[in-house]
Amino acid sequence: MRVLGFDPGTATTGYGVVDGKGNRLTHVAHGVITTSPKDHYAVRLQQLYDECVDLIKIHAPQAIGIEELYFTKNVTTGIPVAQARGVISLAAVQAGLPIGEFSPRQMKLAVAGYGKADKKQVQEMVKMLLNLDALPKPDDAADALGIAICQIHTGQFKAITGQ
Amino acid sequence: MRVLGFDPGTATTGYGVVDGKGNRLTHVAHGVITTSPKDHYAVRLQQLYDECVDLIKIHAPQAIGIEELYFTKNVTTGIPVAQARGVISLAAVQAGLPIGEFSPRQMKLAVAGYGKADKKQVQEMVKMLLNLDALPKPDDAADALGIAICQIHTGQFKAITGQ
Repeated sequence: MRVLGFDPGTATTGYGVVDGKGNRLTHVAHGVITTSPKDHYAVRLQQLYDECVDLIKIHAPQAIGIEELYFTKNVTTGIPVAQARGVISLAAVQAGLPIGEFSPRQMKLAVAGYGKADKKQVQEMVKMLLNLDALPKPDDAADALGIAICQIHTGQFKAITGQ
Repeated sequence: MRVLGFDPGTATTGYGVVDGKGNRLTHVAHGVITTSPKDHYAVRLQQLYDECVDLIKIHAPQAIGIEELYFTKNVTTGIPVAQARGVISLAAVQAGLPIGEFSPRQMKLAVAGYGKADKKQVQEMVKMLLNLDALPKPDDAADALGIAICQIHTGQFKAITGQ
């Protein structure tokens, strides 16, 4: 099973592609989609959406994993992130892909065995699990790989109906 | 100038189409796009997006007006609304349309001359300004008409660059 994981953000959205076969995990790709704060918010959403459509075409995943949002403070900053999550989810559902949603805590549990693992620990564990030569960078891409691993490990994703 | 206004929501998104020529406003259409809470959130976003694309094709507006989001409490409820706003904005920018953003206060000021007008007052003023036989219903559609009127009145929308 190939999973494309996303860690949605305003300026930077991390993505990571991982293959899972039995107990074996294979790294396929990771990186970030960036948009410029100089552009209109809707233009940035379009750029993000177009890049997600491209990633789905290029890597042909069987499922999408995406980080759940939770806002405790700085709510206004959260609005653009939720808008970004909206267009990523749209690209996924348009491609007929099931979508798994995971909290940062679930991802950390699946990757590092500890729900409060810090960014460095997540990067170290992702590196080890995927047999990488170096720590996956930046943080957003490492988290997206973690989300993909989480989805493969748990095999959990909510079935999409209405297709 | 024809404006398509949106009042984004999770289960119900209001829309309203208004023509403005000089001081004259003409009602074209209003209604709501509804999605079922039984469906997966991404399927609901897809339905909303598809209906927005259809509305833009049918009514051929020259601009989109959309309500700004602001969360003071109940933040978690706000995430799906922001996701909805993301796919509405995507449909607009893909059609090459400029997008104006207005706060509820700005809309109420433009429509009722009073930023704290209640829902009933907004409906009454929208009815009068558009020469309607009855109050526009439901609230979300009346607010969307108000957003469209607001955009025509103020003529304000941020230019979209990068097209």
